[in-house]
Amino acid sequence: MNVLLVYAHPEPRSLNGSLKDFSIRRLEAAGHAVQVSDLYAMDWKASLDVHDSLDHEDGVRFDPSLASRHAFERGTQTGDITREQEKLRWADTLILQFPLWWFSMPAILKGWVERVYAYGFAYGVGEHSDARWGDRYGEGSLAGKRAMLIVTTGGWESHYGPRGINGPMEDLLFPIHHGILYYPGFDVLPPFVIHRTGRIDAARYARIEDELGQRLDTLATTAPIAFRPQNAGDYAIPELTLRDDIAPGRSGFAVHVA
Amino acid sequence: MNVLLVYAHPEPRSLNGSLKDFSIRRLEAAGHAVQVSDLYAMDWKASLDVHDSLDHEDGVRFDPSLASRHAFERGTQTGDITREQEKLRWADTLILQFPLWWFSMPAILKGWVERVYAYGFAYGVGEHSDARWGDRYGEGSLAGKRAMLIVTTGGWESHYGPRGINGPMEDLLFPIHHGILYYPGFDVLPPFVIHRTGRIDAARYARIEDELGQRLDTLATTAPIAFRPQNAGDYAIPELTLRDDIAPGRSGFAVHVA
Repeated sequence: MNVLLVYAHPEPRSLNGSLKDFSIRRLEAAGHAVQVSDLYAMDWKASLDVHDSLDHEDGVRFDPSLASRHAFERGTQTGDITREQEKLRWADTLILQFPLWWFSMPAILKGWVERVYAYGFAYGVGEHSDARWGDRYGEGSLAGKRAMLIVTTGGWESHYGPRGINGPMEDLLFPIHHGILYYPGFDVLPPFVIHRTGRIDAARYARIEDELGQRLDTLATTAPIAFRPQNAGDYAIPELTLRDDIAPGRSGFAVHVA
Repeated sequence: MNVLLVYAHPEPRSLNGSLKDFSIRRLEAAGHAVQVSDLYAMDWKASLDVHDSLDHEDGVRFDPSLASRHAFERGTQTGDITREQEKLRWADTLILQFPLWWFSMPAILKGWVERVYAYGFAYGVGEHSDARWGDRYGEGSLAGKRAMLIVTTGGWESHYGPRGINGPMEDLLFPIHHGILYYPGFDVLPPFVIHRTGRIDAARYARIEDELGQRLDTLATTAPIAFRPQNAGDYAIPELTLRDDIAPGRSGFAVHVA
């Protein structure tokens, strides 16, 4: 299959850099085609602004959604944006690899999402009616593809446990898993998370490669997180609240997993 | 008091731009001193990299935390970073104002956090022992100051409700409230959130200014979110998990609010 690895770490000679190189080798050895978007090496423009539309006229009020919609429809997006969209179309599986900085993805990767996820491409897709609220959350331009995060963090696993002070890792990643990946249609696999990156000796590094290798070997068969599709009856439309008879009395991120 | 408003929207003639101008007027009229970091107007550098240290030597492996620590200690941070740190020291209250993009802050603001929050300034502060795990989560360089978010979103309030499809707004904002603001010591006030920004007529805009004005008038007296301090006995150290007898049987972000 075709795998797109979007990678956000500034230093090639880092744990992240080593694992990126390992992943490419492992995937290619298994016969997959791999493209890498190494955002720091590409000097990726992180901030969404008027310059993302080639036909922006000075002095015209900038509406980010409207400008994105027009540029996507008219073919006036900048080349860096269209190239990433082409890679996403080409990919069967998307991997986002990054260190957890301040409990989310690095700014350079957030800016990749904001700029590449154009209106008409990743949002603003499909019709709104009494039965549907656009093609999103399980439907959309990227439906049928898979996605997985590879995340590193300096903190201990217990700090990110169910009662850990940082909050549970699965909840910290929910806005990415559900809001960035499931939203435009990806099936989202459980993440591969490495804790306590300041304490990795050769033996532990070898174990990490083993475990990551198994995850890469099973990308096509691993069961995705069972997020609930928006338009299949679980949610009231247009309120988009979970129906009373589903997960009754519960609330929070977890109710959106069947 | 001194108020720092860090503002992240690319268009001055937007709802966000209008509310930013309103907030400055309101605060100044009440006798407060206001500084604004208008990140788009400043062309803020969003991506943390080797160039954030003036004394980085080419070819030396870049460790983001270590480089930040050295630059902060040696006074070799870039001027844009030190200026923002000075504003934070000066401020009694910090306001972060931004549109919610892909369920978090815009990349340009995330990059402000990553670059301004240096090691030794916002993290890596204080000692680690059997009783303390650094000065963080309620202690730290910014303790005694207050912080509040002003957030706009196109979606409906119900979409962000307890059972709304996007996840509860308070949970989406937890990584910012708790992980970015409470972490270095801020007391965090409840956010001011504006939903459905595509449907704002003059009457609704007037109501929004009224409500925001009241929040600005009461910055000094509004009760902060009662996050649990890390080093006051609620958490086991070094596991940093909530002790069994506190919020027994519960888990998730909410257990970190007393």
